[in-house]
Amino acid sequence: MSLPFLRSAVVGLTAYTPHLEPADDPSSASLDILDTNECPYDLPEALKEKLAWQLHHGIAANRYPDGGHGALKSAIAQYVTESVTESAEGATFDADHISVGNGSDELIRSLLIVTCVGGEGSVLVANPTFSMYGILARTLGVPVVTVGRSEETFEVDLAAAQQAIAQPQAAPVRVVFMVHPNSPTANALTAAEVLWLKSLPPEILVVVDEAYFEFSQQTTVAEVLTRPNWVVMRTFSKAFRLAAYRVGYTVANLELTQALEKVRLPYNLPSLTQAAAQLALAHRAELLAVVPEIQQQRRELAGAIAQHTPLHLWPSDANFLYGRPLVPSGQPLNTELERWFNGLRRQGTLVRHTGGGLRITIGTPAENQRTLTHMQQL
Amino acid sequence: MSLPFLRSAVVGLTAYTPHLEPADDPSSASLDILDTNECPYDLPEALKEKLAWQLHHGIAANRYPDGGHGALKSAIAQYVTESVTESAEGATFDADHISVGNGSDELIRSLLIVTCVGGEGSVLVANPTFSMYGILARTLGVPVVTVGRSEETFEVDLAAAQQAIAQPQAAPVRVVFMVHPNSPTANALTAAEVLWLKSLPPEILVVVDEAYFEFSQQTTVAEVLTRPNWVVMRTFSKAFRLAAYRVGYTVANLELTQALEKVRLPYNLPSLTQAAAQLALAHRAELLAVVPEIQQQRRELAGAIAQHTPLHLWPSDANFLYGRPLVPSGQPLNTELERWFNGLRRQGTLVRHTGGGLRITIGTPAENQRTLTHMQQL
Repeated sequence: MSLPFLRSAVVGLTAYTPHLEPADDPSSASLDILDTNECPYDLPEALKEKLAWQLHHGIAANRYPDGGHGALKSAIAQYVTESVTESAEGATFDADHISVGNGSDELIRSLLIVTCVGGEGSVLVANPTFSMYGILARTLGVPVVTVGRSEETFEVDLAAAQQAIAQPQAAPVRVVFMVHPNSPTANALTAAEVLWLKSLPPEILVVVDEAYFEFSQQTTVAEVLTRPNWVVMRTFSKAFRLAAYRVGYTVANLELTQALEKVRLPYNLPSLTQAAAQLALAHRAELLAVVPEIQQQRRELAGAIAQHTPLHLWPSDANFLYGRPLVPSGQPLNTELERWFNGLRRQGTLVRHTGGGLRITIGTPAENQRTLTHMQQL
Repeated sequence: MSLPFLRSAVVGLTAYTPHLEPADDPSSASLDILDTNECPYDLPEALKEKLAWQLHHGIAANRYPDGGHGALKSAIAQYVTESVTESAEGATFDADHISVGNGSDELIRSLLIVTCVGGEGSVLVANPTFSMYGILARTLGVPVVTVGRSEETFEVDLAAAQQAIAQPQAAPVRVVFMVHPNSPTANALTAAEVLWLKSLPPEILVVVDEAYFEFSQQTTVAEVLTRPNWVVMRTFSKAFRLAAYRVGYTVANLELTQALEKVRLPYNLPSLTQAAAQLALAHRAELLAVVPEIQQQRRELAGAIAQHTPLHLWPSDANFLYGRPLVPSGQPLNTELERWFNGLRRQGTLVRHTGGGLRITIGTPAENQRTLTHMQQL
């Protein structure tokens, strides 16, 4: 059977592979889940209690959520203002710079909708990178232009990127997506890369996805105030420990923010999700206090892996490591990666095999110790 | 300032007007909220307690949700199987027929994405109807073909609809959206309308939005099993009292369901949202026990309004009433509607002024009594 009302392109799409679920695989119940770059810690007990109290006494389940997100956007703007680096001190943001979404995913889709659908533009990504930009573009029929990265440093091939943009095409490049630091390769944007992004003409939107900002402490968010074609995305799913609740946000100039607000689903965030994000922001000092521990664990685990295993690691500015096993010449890398992935999994450590390497989330100290032990036993 | 990377069509879009929020308007805190067709009752105390317990002890906030929705989809399929009418007895559904979304809104968008974007098709709606079909289509650059309804019965102008479909156009009609019963006019599909929908060719997808099914007890869901171009949408936001949580679902054949799964955001439902929907289904007998009360209240309020006020009402198969005030000839209807809307609001009853009439949600018996009193005092 083939359905004649379906766009033919949809048939060829590949869905994002969701996170492996313990329910689907009983053997996974005792795994160390180090494949989705979550913070290894749940919310503190007192915050869970507060949120449970809100569910019970503060929120009417039968009533639609606040579709304007006013309180949440103001709290986010305050946090963003605090997060600008010293060089941009004095830059301030308010609620009109912010749009919130059902995770960053919904915001990526909105960005594509306001710029590219209907043959009006294509997007540029530098692989390997976060796969959702390309996946969501393809669902909307938006062409994806890809360029590579240096095999040594994972810096973007800027010459190729420049050429791809300059080349005349039916759907010109309208959006460039960059993760800062990149996933899965863990490198922050270099000065040269930022300079190139700044050099892009006003008709190309620069999207800097700072999902891992809290771990890198590097941000381009102040650019938003002076560059109309600059938007920063962030999320509550990583350092803020709210992956279960699904909240991402954009920081952009007022006109772009308004466009994003126009195309978003009107009640896109459940009431409790909004409450959770506000609670996390109100207690951000406590929640973000584990970031230095995770950075320290990252350094220690990276050092130990380099010393005790044949996995080649790259420097990381995020809460994960990226590496590739050394392979005797002539042997396929992919086979060796599968051996590592399966061997680790069998021993109880779930990592992600992606982009021609292994991406390993930094977990608790005990989890990281087991990651090392399991690698040594391969 | 105008941003050159924005599609020009986006500038002209109008966003859905979200539900008025008490926070934005202090005078609204004591209003009877009868403008969004919610169930007037919150979840029972025992269920709120259970859900709060799950938040506190069952769900790790830092972990991504189950992106496969297996347990929820199975529970929905079971409920859908129970809901088929006698004439279709024996029809059974399983998880593979179900896709779930962040409210029905996300599913409307997914349906548009798999069928129409990129100039491949347009959609047909019969006004007045639920505005989100048109709004979401326009955000994606999908043309919207509109036909009218009878001013007496609000039946779809089938001759016009047939003509619109037959007429050659660049983007042929690929999807017909029908609400059953319709919002805001409260009428269920007639036998003639269903017959016409069944007569549509296989290259046109028929979407029957049964958001108010529990109040109408009329469903076309069994058609899904024999008609590859038939999809039914439903929601947990009305009779199931979960508007705050945002869950809608589609029932469709396996191939269409698979296409919807491919284009949806991979983690579109927060963990707690999934838990809330499963809990509501597990206690559906208790939750749906108020449906007969609401139907009875609808009959009583409709009778009293007809007897004591100059508002002309139409028969309702939903949890709301639709009416228009009688206007002396030559006087504009809209002015009179504004007078009713504002007068009711001033007295404490918030209704919806839409589609050239007033849409009034059935509330608690006390709210309905006040609705009547406030109308009499106009």
